[in-house]
Amino acid sequence: MSHFTVTATDGAARAGILRTGHGDVRTPAFMPVGTKGTVKSLDPDELRAVGSQIILGNTYHLHFRPGDELIAELGSLHAFSGWDGPILTDSGGFQVFSLRDTLLAVDDDGVTFRSVYDGAPERFTPELAAQIQRNLGSDIAMCLDVCPPAGVTRAELEEVVRRTSLWAARQRQTDRADGQLVFGITQGAADEELRRRSIEELVALDFDGYALGGLAVGESREEMFAATTWAAPLLPPERPRYFMGIGDAEGILRVIGAGIDLFDCVLPTRTARTGSALTGSGRLNLKNARFARDPRPLEEGCGCPACARFSRAYIRHLINQEELLGLRLLSLHNLHFLLELTAGARAAIERGELRAYTAERLSRLAARPQEDPWDS
Amino acid sequence: MSHFTVTATDGAARAGILRTGHGDVRTPAFMPVGTKGTVKSLDPDELRAVGSQIILGNTYHLHFRPGDELIAELGSLHAFSGWDGPILTDSGGFQVFSLRDTLLAVDDDGVTFRSVYDGAPERFTPELAAQIQRNLGSDIAMCLDVCPPAGVTRAELEEVVRRTSLWAARQRQTDRADGQLVFGITQGAADEELRRRSIEELVALDFDGYALGGLAVGESREEMFAATTWAAPLLPPERPRYFMGIGDAEGILRVIGAGIDLFDCVLPTRTARTGSALTGSGRLNLKNARFARDPRPLEEGCGCPACARFSRAYIRHLINQEELLGLRLLSLHNLHFLLELTAGARAAIERGELRAYTAERLSRLAARPQEDPWDS
Repeated sequence: MSHFTVTATDGAARAGILRTGHGDVRTPAFMPVGTKGTVKSLDPDELRAVGSQIILGNTYHLHFRPGDELIAELGSLHAFSGWDGPILTDSGGFQVFSLRDTLLAVDDDGVTFRSVYDGAPERFTPELAAQIQRNLGSDIAMCLDVCPPAGVTRAELEEVVRRTSLWAARQRQTDRADGQLVFGITQGAADEELRRRSIEELVALDFDGYALGGLAVGESREEMFAATTWAAPLLPPERPRYFMGIGDAEGILRVIGAGIDLFDCVLPTRTARTGSALTGSGRLNLKNARFARDPRPLEEGCGCPACARFSRAYIRHLINQEELLGLRLLSLHNLHFLLELTAGARAAIERGELRAYTAERLSRLAARPQEDPWDS
Repeated sequence: MSHFTVTATDGAARAGILRTGHGDVRTPAFMPVGTKGTVKSLDPDELRAVGSQIILGNTYHLHFRPGDELIAELGSLHAFSGWDGPILTDSGGFQVFSLRDTLLAVDDDGVTFRSVYDGAPERFTPELAAQIQRNLGSDIAMCLDVCPPAGVTRAELEEVVRRTSLWAARQRQTDRADGQLVFGITQGAADEELRRRSIEELVALDFDGYALGGLAVGESREEMFAATTWAAPLLPPERPRYFMGIGDAEGILRVIGAGIDLFDCVLPTRTARTGSALTGSGRLNLKNARFARDPRPLEEGCGCPACARFSRAYIRHLINQEELLGLRLLSLHNLHFLLELTAGARAAIERGELRAYTAERLSRLAARPQEDPWDS
């Protein structure tokens, strides 16, 4: 049996089942980000309670702290962190290239940078990215890719695509952990010819899934969605498709509509750290004085553990006093919101009603001016 | 039926049941401290899971943030915080007098100080302390007392006792929330004559319970235990006795042995914030490199949620990376440790074996040099 089955389609959108060594994932699926082996402030039971199916781990950070060899010694990232469901690990490429002050040199062999932990020079290669992820024992490993900043020239972008394919070919030859799936990452920004070339070169290497990388940085939102719409169908339909780094409600619905199966973002927990709640009608900034005496839950009708018991007034008090429970409750709510939104989209695809579902959710979001979903 | 029943005695120690408007408390009982309407980092379900029967709220802090009137408007501190069990609120006296940079003046009418929140001059009187606690709707309200610093002269201490009795008499005349119990606080440090006078004056006012205040500051540990040993029996046996501010394992066992029923301390959560775990054989500083690859739970055989699933290595990683889950797991464990220690003492009293239980627990603690329980 293949590791991925499309069970329903609705236009370009698909619902499916992704099978991993730690259980099935019903797609489309939002993946909460557990950068350092913990989704900030939450424990595994809470992650389950809000509907998480699969979480992310971070190759870069776990390699340096506490060390992937230490994690291997203690079993795997699952055993270490207590999350026994599926885990996808990124390759570290995004961190190496986005923490730009620390980037030292890139060549065909790999990338040299200074560790954010101690400033020591370090080097990542496709082989090391594979080895770290083997040590972490993740269910899905990602290829090391070159992540260009916004505004590179076309010649530079062409070089990004060439090097990313070169690295992917090398990583494809490495050993993997038992049952580990490996996904390739395509680059090319919103340049149709280069993205197509990247996809063709990656698909020729026959990965277990494919990501659209480098789209959530640089492009305008509309360019990003447009590119996703033409790029996703270029990927093989029988393999899962992962859009890296999107997590606002509109973005999730639009990439699902374009045929994306997996996506991740730190937005729900980062938004919580700014004291804001995601709701069906936009964001609530709990620091706003109008919530001081508000006995209502963050969102009426929400089934999350925060809304089941606590008022906006109480959560506002916790946030203002920098009490950690406030951060937890907002993180729980925000994750639940995006996971529920995604589950709703999945059900809508199964009914063939994604267009109506998307329109209804977006019209509710638009009914009240939403704060900029990119501001955090 | 009285609100307090002694169900067993063992030497000076007692086991009993304290009945409140939000349920019974089996004594001796350790009370976790929820200063600002939350026991730091934990939610009500977690507090229950580790065996909390009653928690503390803080009159001073809740008066200023979010405001006791706001809490009253939303129901009570129970409704506001989601903890539906018994709550004891302190009177604010300890904060007013211990945040000494902010103390402005004390007279027979009350005490003037600068709020730590905005520096504005504020005044507490017995009547206001009662009113705030009425608004909070706590199950047990405490009298406003004068808390002297260490090293006051005997004349100053005599004045503390006089004024504390004066204030207690006034607070005794105030209205209370429905079903609210009110406890008096005795002063006098370790001066036998003054402590005896304070107790007699307070007992004459007929409170629902009595606290030994001002013993956990100033005196040496041995003087403090000696004073507790002669002072506790001066309190009426049919009323609950509360030792304010003790929470290390040895201290808990010794005040229980002296006949104390209730005690509180921020030590378990504060110790967690320093990255340390309380165990039967002393403290573990998780930052110590020797725990980096330690697959064992914080304490073998411990039934707390942290020990059920997570290793020392993982918790150390979380602490070192300042991940909030680490603080939560240590807080859960440390509270569970003290609550379990106290439950064990209660069971030992019921069997008439407190002396042996205390000796066994203290010998295990002494087997490995314990870090100073007062260092945090």
